[in-house]
Amino acid sequence: MASSAIETDGQEILDLEKNRQAEMSQWVLNAPEPPSLWRELMDSARETVLPRGKRFPYLKDKDGLSKTVISVLQAMFPIFSWCRHYNATKLRNDLLAGLTLASLCIPQSIGYATLAKLDPQYGLYTSVIPPLIYAVMGTSRDIAIGPVAVVSLLMSSMVPKLEDPEANPIAYRNLVLTTTFFAGIFQAAFGLFRLGFLVDFLSHAAIVGFVSGAAIVIGLQQMKGLLGIAHFTNKTDVISVMQAIWRSVHQYWNPHNFILGCSFLSFIKLTRFVGKRNRKLFWLPATAPLISVVLSTLLVYLTRADKHGVMIIKHIKKGLNPGSIHELQFNNPHIGEVAKTGLIVAVIAITEATAVGRSFASIKGYHINGNQEMVAFGFMNILGSFTSCYVATGSFSRSAVNFSAGCETAMSNIVMAITVIISLELFTRLLYFTPIAVLSAIILSALPGLVDPHEAYYIWKVDKLDFLVCIGAFFGVLFASVEIGLLAAVIISFVKIIIFSIRPGTEELGRLPGTDIFCDVNQYPMAVKNSKALIIRVKSGLLCFANANFVKEKIMKWATEEEENDSQGKRTVQVVILDMSNLMNIDMSGIASLLELQNNLASGGMELAITNPKWQVIHKLRLANFVTKMGGRVFLTVGEAVDACLGAKMAAV
Amino acid sequence: MASSAIETDGQEILDLEKNRQAEMSQWVLNAPEPPSLWRELMDSARETVLPRGKRFPYLKDKDGLSKTVISVLQAMFPIFSWCRHYNATKLRNDLLAGLTLASLCIPQSIGYATLAKLDPQYGLYTSVIPPLIYAVMGTSRDIAIGPVAVVSLLMSSMVPKLEDPEANPIAYRNLVLTTTFFAGIFQAAFGLFRLGFLVDFLSHAAIVGFVSGAAIVIGLQQMKGLLGIAHFTNKTDVISVMQAIWRSVHQYWNPHNFILGCSFLSFIKLTRFVGKRNRKLFWLPATAPLISVVLSTLLVYLTRADKHGVMIIKHIKKGLNPGSIHELQFNNPHIGEVAKTGLIVAVIAITEATAVGRSFASIKGYHINGNQEMVAFGFMNILGSFTSCYVATGSFSRSAVNFSAGCETAMSNIVMAITVIISLELFTRLLYFTPIAVLSAIILSALPGLVDPHEAYYIWKVDKLDFLVCIGAFFGVLFASVEIGLLAAVIISFVKIIIFSIRPGTEELGRLPGTDIFCDVNQYPMAVKNSKALIIRVKSGLLCFANANFVKEKIMKWATEEEENDSQGKRTVQVVILDMSNLMNIDMSGIASLLELQNNLASGGMELAITNPKWQVIHKLRLANFVTKMGGRVFLTVGEAVDACLGAKMAAV
Repeated sequence: MASSAIETDGQEILDLEKNRQAEMSQWVLNAPEPPSLWRELMDSARETVLPRGKRFPYLKDKDGLSKTVISVLQAMFPIFSWCRHYNATKLRNDLLAGLTLASLCIPQSIGYATLAKLDPQYGLYTSVIPPLIYAVMGTSRDIAIGPVAVVSLLMSSMVPKLEDPEANPIAYRNLVLTTTFFAGIFQAAFGLFRLGFLVDFLSHAAIVGFVSGAAIVIGLQQMKGLLGIAHFTNKTDVISVMQAIWRSVHQYWNPHNFILGCSFLSFIKLTRFVGKRNRKLFWLPATAPLISVVLSTLLVYLTRADKHGVMIIKHIKKGLNPGSIHELQFNNPHIGEVAKTGLIVAVIAITEATAVGRSFASIKGYHINGNQEMVAFGFMNILGSFTSCYVATGSFSRSAVNFSAGCETAMSNIVMAITVIISLELFTRLLYFTPIAVLSAIILSALPGLVDPHEAYYIWKVDKLDFLVCIGAFFGVLFASVEIGLLAAVIISFVKIIIFSIRPGTEELGRLPGTDIFCDVNQYPMAVKNSKALIIRVKSGLLCFANANFVKEKIMKWATEEEENDSQGKRTVQVVILDMSNLMNIDMSGIASLLELQNNLASGGMELAITNPKWQVIHKLRLANFVTKMGGRVFLTVGEAVDACLGAKMAAV
Repeated sequence: MASSAIETDGQEILDLEKNRQAEMSQWVLNAPEPPSLWRELMDSARETVLPRGKRFPYLKDKDGLSKTVISVLQAMFPIFSWCRHYNATKLRNDLLAGLTLASLCIPQSIGYATLAKLDPQYGLYTSVIPPLIYAVMGTSRDIAIGPVAVVSLLMSSMVPKLEDPEANPIAYRNLVLTTTFFAGIFQAAFGLFRLGFLVDFLSHAAIVGFVSGAAIVIGLQQMKGLLGIAHFTNKTDVISVMQAIWRSVHQYWNPHNFILGCSFLSFIKLTRFVGKRNRKLFWLPATAPLISVVLSTLLVYLTRADKHGVMIIKHIKKGLNPGSIHELQFNNPHIGEVAKTGLIVAVIAITEATAVGRSFASIKGYHINGNQEMVAFGFMNILGSFTSCYVATGSFSRSAVNFSAGCETAMSNIVMAITVIISLELFTRLLYFTPIAVLSAIILSALPGLVDPHEAYYIWKVDKLDFLVCIGAFFGVLFASVEIGLLAAVIISFVKIIIFSIRPGTEELGRLPGTDIFCDVNQYPMAVKNSKALIIRVKSGLLCFANANFVKEKIMKWATEEEENDSQGKRTVQVVILDMSNLMNIDMSGIASLLELQNNLASGGMELAITNPKWQVIHKLRLANFVTKMGGRVFLTVGEAVDACLGAKMAAV
């Protein structure tokens, strides 16, 4: 169409047009050399590792050392920034939020420590030191720090493989503390070397599937406490746990535990329902766990139900966190496994905390510094491992309570930590009669928020392959183990990337009516195919060893089949135009295939032209001498290629 | 620029333009639904698995059963096609080529059998049955079938791990035959299920590196024969072999072997030099190995040099291939390893044969049916494993001789096989005194053709990362083992694909002067940036979990930094236009990041517009309701987006 229009115009316009085309082809061919691989690597390393924002703006002004020191301190310890604007109103709000938080945190911490197969006081320890350090170093104002369900599950599913927590509780605890140390080291390293992008490798879909599966596994673990089972399995997969429950129920089952647990679970659920109906009563669901603990403890104490089979916490060690540097075991034969567990826990903990922090920051409209966050998490876990804490991170449920209670700054974490310290010093003896079934009920009540079928359905609706990742993580956690679930999700995600990148798809382009734009004829049904030129675009960002041969054969088949259709009077392909605008890069196999394509087309009397090659592609094609071998038919746009090639053919006839 | 031009024009043109833009936006938004994942999977499976060319054109005509049967037979056994046009001239040429081939094949086969740690007659057996079967089923006219160096090396490096060839030669041989059977099964399966693309996963660069490394390893293995070492290492890596040579040379070293080997190596090299100078003497290098064998055997026989330490072949079993079905071991405890070895050997053998076949077919200008070739290789190896043959494939050096000798059809393979049969029946006794050093010399003389430093340099010049693949395979083979070399190459190749696909690069676009085309400002330095719109294109085919967050932060940084520069009077970004033309696909994390980007930009007073989303991308964005959330600013081209967004801003002011 366009070519015939040109021909009917005068010779002058034709010449002008030709000059213009030649000029634009020269633009393509004479592009400056792209940065070398080395420079690109350096640039990308620099971009990745060095601060993205202006983290040290003070370096610009030369106002003296003291100002610089203050700025560095402010960057490292954001508390110095917000402390200066702190006032009584904020303190009142933070005090209220911190106390509410503590009332939820104490029972949850004890429960999560039990889930992690540690003594109950370790949960409380973990709610003391880490929140204090985070308050000094963290950048989020709403996050509530402490032990969380998923990390506790990870600990209890990975560390017992190395050391039996029942046979040898001290060795087990030492390994947990060493794992915590490694997790802290990895988190701090991620932050300091700005490797936060590594956390991105867990995709959204994988997290949804993983957390849902983990919630169900955690729920099943609570059956131990809820049913009062003494000997439970160390495995976490659904089948082993179900078998253990089935066996125990047949052997010995105490209904008191179950009735007690279910009653308080119903109570907590009821308060949550009321709290949702009336936003002003937000403190009711937040304090319900503490109320449950107090009521149930009183109940057991008064009725001495522990003598009738109700399992109770018994002794909780009184007093503040003891030091634990001497408990870290670096000469352990399992040290490699411990480090691996530390890495997995570090990634999961950061992922959860980042999700929590980002969501509340975006609601309140402030910015979270991802790398500083990771440094804060790292230091809080390293110092935590020195003071008998296991891995702490930002808890979703408690952060939500913190937010609803109107917290203003990280001060609420300090208030919470102080409350926990007071409890550790004064009230541990009061928890002697607390029934374990109630702790299980408290954990169970927090789980439904982690299972998200709506999000899973949304993922299914939008992206079937992402749903596969989600389901892979879910079933992996449920039926194999926590690590296998994560591994399955990561592997499926990367296989998906490989498949998408090398899928040897091609699409035919046609001209959109009334424009010079060429588009996929399937996506734009109104696009008109050219009768003499076959315009093909590769549907992949790479033309490489894995797809080049296939693409070549597909184009050849297309070109020759269109040829054959010609006998029924359809079209004669004279020119094959390969639109390279999708291709980011090409490799040696890709270039070899293009050369074969060019030779095969030439032997069939057809021409090959390429359009809009990207920087790396045209550079490599030039280096490989492909441009001269194919007669220099390189154009910037498909339109020019059509005009130039068909115009030349016409002139030759 | 373009927008101001529009504004100065009359209102009428503006309206027309607006209508046109709206229409084109509708084209983008109302694209038909892309094929579902399921249909795409089916289509791609169909395309992959089903015949690409018209393999059964006879199905169209209904001329009766006999014709159909003949056509099927012709497709399965191409010999029926070319046999009908066979004539005396072709026979004369094939006879000449076949005899030349046999003279090279007999000494090489014996040598390669020794390399594979088998008795010499097994090399000869492998030059009988496989060539005959290939002649019936294969589609290449020039390929010469038989044992080859690389496959023999693979056998001798992988199977001895399961069974010691010196301690238990019969069990070793049985495993080799079983490996051959598996290799044949895999090859036939690749062909029948049209999985030939799996062979593409070994990239060109990997093959160059692998073959070069293998050639050096094979050369070092020949030191055993050349130096007359009795006890050699079973390992193939350079360091082990060097140590073995060093030890042997210090313990016992017979110079006669070395002198004999080197003399005949020089002779063969000399004939090759002469043959290259004078193309008519092509038979001289081709027959030189046989001449060497005859001369050296005579020499040893006359001087009885074997009594002075010259190692000789001694007994070669007389007679045709014995049956070996009973020797296949499917109950072996190592059966999994054997099958794995079979798979690796199958892939390497096909890769070599395909490369050989394609290169000669493209010289002569005929087409090779890749899948039929694989079926032919599969059947020849399966039947070979029943008749005491180990894995055969197309040999590069012998195919070149076959081609130079003027072969016309696969008949030359039949002639060669018959000659080998006659030798097996009549002349095996004559080879009793053949010195092993001469066999080593013959293998050594064929190796330099496999090492290709020019190609490696070419790869280095064009593609540094492909060179890494090449070097990985080379050093892997050299210093670790054959499998590790291959594994290294495949892993580096796929990691390269992942890195390219998820690298979070972005580029800024500018308008090429005098056009409506927007291009990378780095690739096209003449492109002019827009003063109010930041136009960004993602340099990756996927916006997914691994790069979406990084891309988002990069764009935000870019947009806000440009903002800041404004105080020095540079530019105010009002609109960020994201050109999506590169993106083949997007996942849930990508959509989430786009949403965050849109929110962040909005809170900074900027607008986000997207242009030219591909089929899958716009479909998913629509499903995720992103299009409505971002206010429907979706355009077909960047130019329209600039005009529409800035035009609207102007109108609002």
